[in-house]
Amino acid sequence: MRTREALIRSAAEIFHDEGFHAAALTTISSRAGVSNGALHFHFASKAALADAVEEAAADVLRAVVGRWDGGPPGVLQCLVNATHELACALQNDVVLRAGFELSREAGRQPRTDLRLCWQNWVTDMVGRAGRGGELRESVAPESAVAAVVAATSGFEVLGMRNQAWLSRSTVAQFWLLLLPALAPAPHAGLWQAEGSWTGTATG
Amino acid sequence: MRTREALIRSAAEIFHDEGFHAAALTTISSRAGVSNGALHFHFASKAALADAVEEAAADVLRAVVGRWDGGPPGVLQCLVNATHELACALQNDVVLRAGFELSREAGRQPRTDLRLCWQNWVTDMVGRAGRGGELRESVAPESAVAAVVAATSGFEVLGMRNQAWLSRSTVAQFWLLLLPALAPAPHAGLWQAEGSWTGTATG
Repeated sequence: MRTREALIRSAAEIFHDEGFHAAALTTISSRAGVSNGALHFHFASKAALADAVEEAAADVLRAVVGRWDGGPPGVLQCLVNATHELACALQNDVVLRAGFELSREAGRQPRTDLRLCWQNWVTDMVGRAGRGGELRESVAPESAVAAVVAATSGFEVLGMRNQAWLSRSTVAQFWLLLLPALAPAPHAGLWQAEGSWTGTATG
Repeated sequence: MRTREALIRSAAEIFHDEGFHAAALTTISSRAGVSNGALHFHFASKAALADAVEEAAADVLRAVVGRWDGGPPGVLQCLVNATHELACALQNDVVLRAGFELSREAGRQPRTDLRLCWQNWVTDMVGRAGRGGELRESVAPESAVAAVVAATSGFEVLGMRNQAWLSRSTVAQFWLLLLPALAPAPHAGLWQAEGSWTGTATG
């Protein structure tokens, strides 16, 4: 089991540095400190290894959104907090980062589409915010979903070359602008654009 | 010259379908209807071909933003219109699409970073909108830039698997939400989220 995890982590690092197509299995096994035979014992092919990286990344994503599935801070604040925690995790967790990158690799059909998982969760949260009176009546839920999913996907892809896009301050800039447009006026001041989460996000 | 253009277009199609690393030069030359020798006469390597695709895509991007560099509709409306025209062009112009995809290819340093060109243009436009009184005083220009650049990058990357993200209605949903947050209240109703551009965007 430990070997399998070391291989997934090593594959994520190499996929992130060199891309899925350029990555060589021998580089992956040697970075994991195991033989090629051990790699082939756990994974039949590079594609199977990529599927495993994506699945491990999906576990990380589910854990992030699972922590913000409603509760005391309110649905909208949970959504804000989850975007901050996701951005932070994308900086620090190479498996999560490689999972997102794999899901937009040309010529490869994602097994677990992380972007779609995220979109489904955001759609659910926006729907709950609307039913709970946390959205302005004039806001179409699909507008809110489009803005949040597009912006977070943008932070992820821009963060690939420049991690400042994943910093707490950049994500907060987005919410500073969007929260007053989403939340009914009497409540707008209650939400914290920088997140009410005391994680270790940088920036 | 016609051969060179055919090769750039063919390379863009193959890079888009198969990814830069997986793409074979023989597939590119045969789709362009030319010999391998002709390809090597024009391009010393696959990397040189990718640089040429990126440069041709940058020309398309410059033409798009050049059409919306201020003028009668106002700076903010020009910015809205340019995002619509960019989304439309990403659906219809494989060279532009491949250029953006190349700029986020792992293990490849972009020669002309299209995302950075776009970000610089948006930053300039937001600055001009602010100086011209088209932004609310409470809006920090960097918030507006972060939101617009992140969302448009998200539309591009999400549009790779699902073109609905590049449709006029999706881009308009984003602006419907953002414009009232950006523009001073008396003017907010003057801007058209769906663009004041009569292009051929679908959706």
